[in-house]
Parts: sequence; structure tokens; C-alpha cells
Amino acid sequence: MDHLNFKAAEIGATLSDERFRALKDRLRLNLITAQQKALSLARFPIVIVLAGVRGAGVIDTQNLLNTWMDPRWIESHAFDGPSPEDRGRPPLWRYWRSLPANGATGLYLGGWHSEAIAAGAKKGGLAELKARIAHIRAFERTLTDSGALVLKFWLHVGEAANKAATSAHKVDPLFGFRTSDAALPPQPPYKAMIKTAATLLEATDSAAASWHVVEGTDDNFRRASVLTILEEALTAHIAAWEERGKKDDVPGALPPELPAIKRTASLAKLRMPRLSDTAYCRAFPKLQHRVYAAQKAAHAKGIPCIAAFEGWDAAGKGGAIRRLTYSLNAFNFHVVPIAAPTDEEAAHHYLWRFWRQLPPAGGVTIFDRTWYGRVLVEQVDKFTRKPEWKRGYAEINAFEQQLVDSGVVLLKFWMHISKKEQKRRLKEREDTSFKRWKLSGTDWHAYKQYDDYLEAADEMLARCSRVPWHVIPGDDKHYARTTVLDTVASALEKAVKGR
Amino acid sequence: MDHLNFKAAEIGATLSDERFRALKDRLRLNLITAQQKALSLARFPIVIVLAGVRGAGVIDTQNLLNTWMDPRWIESHAFDGPSPEDRGRPPLWRYWRSLPANGATGLYLGGWHSEAIAAGAKKGGLAELKARIAHIRAFERTLTDSGALVLKFWLHVGEAANKAATSAHKVDPLFGFRTSDAALPPQPPYKAMIKTAATLLEATDSAAASWHVVEGTDDNFRRASVLTILEEALTAHIAAWEERGKKDDVPGALPPELPAIKRTASLAKLRMPRLSDTAYCRAFPKLQHRVYAAQKAAHAKGIPCIAAFEGWDAAGKGGAIRRLTYSLNAFNFHVVPIAAPTDEEAAHHYLWRFWRQLPPAGGVTIFDRTWYGRVLVEQVDKFTRKPEWKRGYAEINAFEQQLVDSGVVLLKFWMHISKKEQKRRLKEREDTSFKRWKLSGTDWHAYKQYDDYLEAADEMLARCSRVPWHVIPGDDKHYARTTVLDTVASALEKAVKGR
Repeated sequence: MDHLNFKAAEIGATLSDERFRALKDRLRLNLITAQQKALSLARFPIVIVLAGVRGAGVIDTQNLLNTWMDPRWIESHAFDGPSPEDRGRPPLWRYWRSLPANGATGLYLGGWHSEAIAAGAKKGGLAELKARIAHIRAFERTLTDSGALVLKFWLHVGEAANKAATSAHKVDPLFGFRTSDAALPPQPPYKAMIKTAATLLEATDSAAASWHVVEGTDDNFRRASVLTILEEALTAHIAAWEERGKKDDVPGALPPELPAIKRTASLAKLRMPRLSDTAYCRAFPKLQHRVYAAQKAAHAKGIPCIAAFEGWDAAGKGGAIRRLTYSLNAFNFHVVPIAAPTDEEAAHHYLWRFWRQLPPAGGVTIFDRTWYGRVLVEQVDKFTRKPEWKRGYAEINAFEQQLVDSGVVLLKFWMHISKKEQKRRLKEREDTSFKRWKLSGTDWHAYKQYDDYLEAADEMLARCSRVPWHVIPGDDKHYARTTVLDTVASALEKAVKGR
Repeated sequence: MDHLNFKAAEIGATLSDERFRALKDRLRLNLITAQQKALSLARFPIVIVLAGVRGAGVIDTQNLLNTWMDPRWIESHAFDGPSPEDRGRPPLWRYWRSLPANGATGLYLGGWHSEAIAAGAKKGGLAELKARIAHIRAFERTLTDSGALVLKFWLHVGEAANKAATSAHKVDPLFGFRTSDAALPPQPPYKAMIKTAATLLEATDSAAASWHVVEGTDDNFRRASVLTILEEALTAHIAAWEERGKKDDVPGALPPELPAIKRTASLAKLRMPRLSDTAYCRAFPKLQHRVYAAQKAAHAKGIPCIAAFEGWDAAGKGGAIRRLTYSLNAFNFHVVPIAAPTDEEAAHHYLWRFWRQLPPAGGVTIFDRTWYGRVLVEQVDKFTRKPEWKRGYAEINAFEQQLVDSGVVLLKFWMHISKKEQKRRLKEREDTSFKRWKLSGTDWHAYKQYDDYLEAADEMLARCSRVPWHVIPGDDKHYARTTVLDTVASALEKAVKGR
């Protein structure tokens, strides 16, 4: 692509003071007006990446943006090497959790790209770079598909100018800290960095989130270029959202049709083994000890674990979670019930609420219902439009891949009961005083949709099994609970052995 | 106090299985019903402390609570020694930020008390214990005054039983992990711990948050005691809130009348110095360098800093913040604009949203408007009842004391302009196209209330100056900005020198 030719950004482009002044007032007014409009619309976040060569004016551009727009709704993020908190989480975790809410702007100095470049420019870093590229592509795609404005700038200067900026920094650590990017973390040697950057930019350039390479030598030229691109993109993006509003439409295209699902392995055919009281009483305490010991060892090795529970109402999710938490050190786990999103959550991408709850190194997060709501309840009850939930399968696969790639032990449980057993249990809830609270108005509603949910669940299991599901036959509670605990213990034991 | 006599909890109290069974069903039903009611009322959080001697059944009680109530709305918190994240934050930070939302329950194993006991039981730990007691008292008071239900249990066993529990743990790290509290962190030697605990419990026992000492030897007795106390307290608390609802009343008493404020030092009399363009242009770049260097050094030493900006609309808060952020490494600071609370924030104590934004070690948090909203806009515009904002002064003083005690450089700026200058600037905003966005509908509204705000500001400055205010004469922007930067640089330089 032409605009990814760095050489074209080393030609010495300038803009006279006079021409800059002529642009300035209109640009400034348009920008602040557009920002106010985006804020009041509050439908999409504005995500700006300011990456580039040291000395090309990243910090100066940030300052200008904060001067010309309302800085209270711009949050700047600049991350150095991973912090202790980042341990055990995927590399993109800190970017996900810091994403701006709809209407607001997140300014990422270096983006998520600088650390990928640093990793990739190392000797033998190519494999790491490739893995990161895949995750970055999925991340940006997920954002733009949901209607976020993602703008990526690579501010560029040639090797000589970069050397001058770096050596000036060496002579005086304070010299020109505002404009010389001295505050940014050190970069790899110029040639290696540029080579890696070219690969990364090429691979992460997409129609919806393309790179803008801007020559950074001349202040006027750089400032005018970046802000003009931003102003135009923001104005167009607002217009597109207003258009959607009129047509009651959603962003993002319908994904290409996926191959049809064969329902030969339908949940409806699941065998339902039972476990006698005696066998349960004999096996269960031992299992609890195994879970406790395995998690203790995993904690010592910093291995994080996610136990994600999905399944029918009354399928025994709560009971299984309770048995699991009994068996864990209360200091190391955290249960996250997924109910209606809070307004902070609703103002972000639907995956954001899960990203923000990922376990730290050595911790366990237990989700009572999960991100699969996107392709289950949101599909069946039509809370979400077809393009949105249809994209969900790929988005979820990419999310889970990142988790396992970063070493998370991810256990997905589908707690399964037959339609007959569900009816019996819902009835029992009605009849038992201390179980009645469990019965919500939506339970019988969901029961009536058993067959629709079955179809959605079959599809979900077929499309999202890159990280395997543990389908738990749940008609017998003893059998279900021992199977869940055994699965957790075995997975943790295996992970501990492997590291 | 009688119930703080530990000996009374070493008498070997028991409850027969038969009597426990007789209690059980009613208790269980009442508890879950009360929890559901509290959830749907959503007016107050339920904060339960389960502290005590190892072997007294803390973990067992936690498990029972999670079995008898809906565990999805109970979050258990158990903290070991401070994590890297806790560095630079006051000891109570992790408790504050994990507080449950209104309606939900937070279960604190060991409470914030266990770590105070561990610190206090050390040789020479008495001073530390005293400091912690003051902060804990203020913390619990702040919660109960706002209508939270705070229930504190000390589960007790004598030295022999404690020894047995501890040595059993030594023989087999897995033995009885569910009931023997083996999962809890180690405690100081029994006698020292009990002595320290007695001091702490005595000092933190209050009418609204009293301690319940429960003998833990017999499972039935302990379980029945804790759950009966909880059930009664929760039911009564709900009734009190419903009563308040009927009377349109707020929780917490009016604090004792504070001494009247002498307005001899009124802001109205503030001198407004000016700084010439020449002097400004000469001084300012040097100041920026000083701020940059000082914060860099503070970052290296892990010193956190808060710059809190209050003042009139159009007083130059935004401009000063912008100049300040220019002078900082973008990796180390974070600006928090205080607007209407999100629903997560509104479902917590008003100070929660500030606690959750405290800077990490070496970081800077800049608040654009602050916790002083409680005694300014909330008072003047009557968003909050008199007992609530009147209590604010003491609550804010306690909050700030904790910050400085834990080593935070806390800088409070009151950006001051005269009524005449405010009018001129608001007018200018109307007339300048790229400043018009700054003008919100409330600005002229606030201008009309200048005199009311002046009175509230004078009172605030008088009542909350334990951590001193920096009143910045703002009619001249050059003077104001240099003064702010000079204040930040000087404070950071001093802090760096002192450590």
C-alpha cells in the first residue's frame, strides 16, 4: 500500500506558518464541535493510536489534541513494560480494560503496536510478532465491527532525525521533553524497528482501521495532517451513525455465511449417567482435596484459571459453583455473576465486561453465565441483531484464543439437563419455600423456548470449540458436581505439571 | 463491654443437632427473603466482617452463608499481605474499592482488622495499631452514617483449640481445609494476638458497628449464632430503610454543631497579583522542566501524587491542568474529570469514586473537581440533605489524613477568580467560537449563585485545612499557572528529598 511507504514520509514535507494559521481556526472549531457531537450521541468510542518513531512528535501531537479538544473526555494511555498486574493476563488486557466509553476518546501513545514492535524486533522475535499480529487484527476488527472509530497514526522521521532526537536526549534528559518524545520508552535500533514496524503496519492495515503515515519533521505539517485526518474521519463517522439511527440499523456487516451445523452430536442425545449416594460420598471429599491442592500449586506458579459456566436455568450452575468455591482458598477466587450490564458496561463493547474481570496470575475467576450470552439469550430473545450475534462466534473464538495463548487455564462448562428434568426442578422451586427465590420470572419463559435454546446451544458448541467445551450431564446432581470438580482438578494438575 | 470478654467465648457453648434443625428452616428462609428484599430495595450495602482466631470456623461460616443465601450477590474478600498494586495507597484502599454496591453483600474474611492485628502484635507495633484504629473508626463510621449495614463477628476459640487447629495444619496442609481455617494467612502467636485484638475490638466497637464475639468450638452453636444475628440485623435494617422511605428521610444523625466560621480570611479579599508576559515567558519553561524532573524523581522513589482542582467555573482549572500535564511524562499521570456519577458510582458511598482513582506508587492523579462537591455544589444546589453534607467535612478530613499518612503528596488547589472576572470570561466563551463548547447551561446558573458558593467555599477552606489548601489567585492566568506549577514542583522536590 502506498501510504505504508515510510520513504514517502522522509521527503521533508513542510507547511508554512501562514498556511497553518489559515487552517487553524476552522479546524479547531470543527474538532471541538465534532467531539461534542460524539459525546452527546454517545454511540461509539474514539480510539486514536499515536505511534511512530521517537522524535516524530507523538507527545506534541497528544498535547495539541488535548489543547484543541476538551481534555476531560480524552484519556491518554501510555504503557511501559508489563506491570505486576498484567502478569497472567493476555498482552491486550490493559488496552481492553482502558478502552474509552461510547462518546469518549482514548489516546494510545504507541498504541498496542509499540510493544509488539519491541518484541518482534528482538532476535528470533518473528514468531512472537506473528502471534501478536493475529490478536491485534482480531482486536481492531472487533472494535471497528461494533462501530468504534479507530484511527491509527504512524508519525515518521528518517534515521538521522531519530538519531538526533535520541542523542539530544542522552545529553540532557530534560531537553525538549515536550516535543522530542523523550518521555516515551526506548525503542529498538532504528533499522530493526522500521523493518518490524513495516511488517506490523502492513498486516494490521484494514479498510476500517487503516494506518496513516505522517511525516513528523515539520510541526505545522504534522499537526495539520493529523488533525485534518481526525476531523474528517470523526465527522464522517458521526454522519454514518446518525444515518444508522434514522434507519434503525446496526454497524458492521453480516459475516460470511458459516458452514451449516450437523446436529448429529446434539445435546438432546446426551447420556445422563448417575452416581449413587455412596459413591458420591466416597468420592467427593477426595475431589475437593484434589481441587484445593491443585489450585494451591497453580497459585504458587502464577497460573490463572477461568471456570465459565453456561447452561439451562436450574441446570445446577449455582450448586456446582458453590461446591467449587468450597474447595478453593477464599483468597484466590472471585465469582462474577453476569446479569444486566451496568451503565459503564453498556457503554462499552460487550466483551469489555469480561475482559475487566480476568483473573490475575494465580487467581481463579468463576463466571456464572458468560460471554456466550451473545449467541444464546441475545440471539434467541432477539436482544441483538443478526450481524452482531453472528459475528459473536468469531469474536469469542479470538477472545478465548488470547486467553489460552497467554497461559490461562480456561474451562468452559455447559451444564446440561433434559427438558423434563428442567420442568421438574422449576416446579420444585415453586414448591420449596427456601428455593423459591431462585425462580425468576424469566425461568418459565426460557423453559418455553427450550427447543430454540437447544438449537442455539448446539450451534454454539459446534462453532466455538477451539477451546473445548465440557458438557456436563446434569440430570443427576451428584454426577454433575463430581465431574465439574474432577475436570477442574485435572486441568490444574496438568497445567502445574507443564510449567 | 461485656461481649468483648473473650473468656465468655471459651466456655464450651454447644447447640444440639435437634435444636439446630428446629431453627434451620425458618432461619434459612428468612435470610434469603431478607437478602432478596435488600437487593430489590438497593439502598444500602451489607458489609460483613468474619474475623477471629484460626480454627474458630471463619471459612465454614463463609461457606454456610454462601449456601443459605444467593451467592451471586455475596462477594467474599480475603486479602493477604499488600500486593504490588497496594503500594502507595492507604491500607484501607483495597477494602474501599471492593465495597459492595447497594443491595449486595461483601464478606470480608479477617476484615480490615486482621492485618491491623498482625501489624499491632509485632514488637513496637503499638503506634502503628493506634494509627490504624483511628482510620478504621473513621472508615466504619463513614459507612454506617451513610446507612450501610456493617456487621462484625469475632469467631473465638481458646488457646488449646487454636493450637490444635494450627498443628493439624502443620501435619497435613490439606487436612480439614474447609473448617479449620487453614486457608487463612498465619496469625501472630496466640497471646500477643489476643491482646492486640482486645485493644482493637474495644476501640472499634460502636453502636452502629458493634462486635459480636461468638464462640467457635461447636459448629451448630457458631452457625446458629452468626446467622441469627445476621438475620435479625438485616431484617431490622431493611425495616429502618423502609421507614425512612416513607418519611423521605436520610440515614445518619446531624453531626454536632461545628464552631462558627470567622470570614475574616474570606476569599472575597484575596489579592490578585499579575505576571507580565515577559516574566511569564521567561519563567514558565523552566517551571515545566522543574515539574518534569521532580515527578521523574518521585516516580523513581514510588511517591504518589494527587493534584485536586476546585474553583469557580471559568477560573482556569482546565488551562492549569493542561499546562501541568504538558509537564509530565504521559506514562505517569491520569486525569479524572468529575461529572455525574455512573450507576456503579451512584450505588456506592460518595467517596468511593475517588478511592477507586487513587494513583499507584509513583503515579499522579489529577482530579478536575473533587470530593469537595459534597460540601459545595451538593450543599448550594441542595442535592444532598443537611446531615449528609454537614458530615462531609469530617469525612473528607479523615479521607485526606489517610492519604497523607500513607505518603501521598496531596495538593489541593482552589482556583479563585473575582465575580467580575468570572462574568467577563463566561461572556468571552459565548463570543468566541472555539470556546463556546466550554459553556454549559449550568455556568450562568452557578454565576448567579456566586455569593452562596463564596460562603460555602469560605467554610470549606476553614473546616478542611488539615491538609492545607493552595488558594490560587486566578484573575491573571499567567500568575495562576506559574503558581500551580511552582507548587507542584516544590511539593514533589520536598517529598523526594525527604525519602
